[in-house]
Amino acid sequence: MTAAPRASRVPRTPRIPSAPVRAGVPEHGRMPKYYAAKAELVELLEELGEGGLLPTERELAERYGVARETLRLALRELLLEGRVRRQGRGTVVAGPKIEQPLSLSSYTEGVRRQGRLPGRRLIGLERFAAEAQVAEELGVEVGAQVWHLERVLLADEERVGLESTYAPVALLPGLDEDFDPESSFYAYARDVCGLPAGGGQERIETVLATPREALLIGTPPALPMLLLHRRSWDVTGRPFERVRTLYRGDRFSFTAELSAGD
Amino acid sequence: MTAAPRASRVPRTPRIPSAPVRAGVPEHGRMPKYYAAKAELVELLEELGEGGLLPTERELAERYGVARETLRLALRELLLEGRVRRQGRGTVVAGPKIEQPLSLSSYTEGVRRQGRLPGRRLIGLERFAAEAQVAEELGVEVGAQVWHLERVLLADEERVGLESTYAPVALLPGLDEDFDPESSFYAYARDVCGLPAGGGQERIETVLATPREALLIGTPPALPMLLLHRRSWDVTGRPFERVRTLYRGDRFSFTAELSAGD
Repeated sequence: MTAAPRASRVPRTPRIPSAPVRAGVPEHGRMPKYYAAKAELVELLEELGEGGLLPTERELAERYGVARETLRLALRELLLEGRVRRQGRGTVVAGPKIEQPLSLSSYTEGVRRQGRLPGRRLIGLERFAAEAQVAEELGVEVGAQVWHLERVLLADEERVGLESTYAPVALLPGLDEDFDPESSFYAYARDVCGLPAGGGQERIETVLATPREALLIGTPPALPMLLLHRRSWDVTGRPFERVRTLYRGDRFSFTAELSAGD
Repeated sequence: MTAAPRASRVPRTPRIPSAPVRAGVPEHGRMPKYYAAKAELVELLEELGEGGLLPTERELAERYGVARETLRLALRELLLEGRVRRQGRGTVVAGPKIEQPLSLSSYTEGVRRQGRLPGRRLIGLERFAAEAQVAEELGVEVGAQVWHLERVLLADEERVGLESTYAPVALLPGLDEDFDPESSFYAYARDVCGLPAGGGQERIETVLATPREALLIGTPPALPMLLLHRRSWDVTGRPFERVRTLYRGDRFSFTAELSAGD
């Protein structure tokens, strides 16, 4: 067998892959204008470095010989991808995404490890009678009392995510009295309620922000987000939380360590 | 301390969270028209069930009393999120996303576990002299020969991803001769080259498809994708692959099992 492509719709590329980059130009060589402008902008971002201020749209459109509308399309993609960000009335080169480990360690630890200041802002805490789905996920009877804790996640005062935590009232009866909503729910469960985390299950997907979420997090609606679903149980196997956390897709990536036993 | 929100810009919601759903309506109650239409459509999708055919855009726009353009915006979000898909000239309710474990098991195993038929289509296999970045990631000298293997990932003949694998030629010298590009690279490394996977590191983020990627995978450009970066090493700690896999964000989610030791 040779390395020649078989049954491939796209002819083999003569391009030499000089580094593991994601090449954006189709082999047929026709590159959309906005994408050519985006490629130019990416080079410019590298020259400017993190925090560097981009020239105005008008200047950039002139420089690259494209229409303002085309340039805006290119800038919009860079914005959605978190490579540039708005600052006041200008646009600056964004820093790298925050890397959050997929682990039972809390949001606080992950963000702190990146040298950023973590924070949380309470949106609401209420109790309600569990319906079938949440009852099953939390291992309680239908109708049992369940907390819903909703918080905005902050990094250096910037709103970067939205977290909904569901937990059985029976296991954490004092959540509305002695829990500081700006602190770690994990630390509270462990230290106050005697629920040390024993294990969990996570699922991650990309979704678009709903209007309410966009408003709470302060992002444009329809920004691609990373939605993390998690169920955790204590060392005896009792489920004690069901969490849905929405992270800005332009600000976060997630890491996992793999071992042969996985 | 009470459960009342503090320092929150958004008033406490009187809404009772009856299930862990992502509510989309801002507390100020002003819901964008397209989002109201989307909420109606979501209910319709549940009624129709997987594979169910949606009425035409015109019928739907009339039914919900919105402009065609507004309805299209709602449908577009459902399409980007993988909740509906085009089939011929119609739109049908999509099935659930494929769940892929974040583990050293191969793409093949993950897809097969979901009862779907995995496949791969070769785009190209070439060798080149490693530049600094890829050399570092693969633990080889700058200038050492490195393979670049690029394949489209299939599930039930549908194109769902694009995988770029970089590997040192020294460790896998016969890749262009005795490797079947439709088979598992892992199984080849293990069985033919004596490189059983010992561990790895993954990073996952959301990105927009480039025009070339969109063409190869057959998606609309700018569809949110999940980009998985992986480095793997054998049981002696030698890196043997650096992979970038792009998965359709509307078709995949990733799962991880967590333990207290993580």
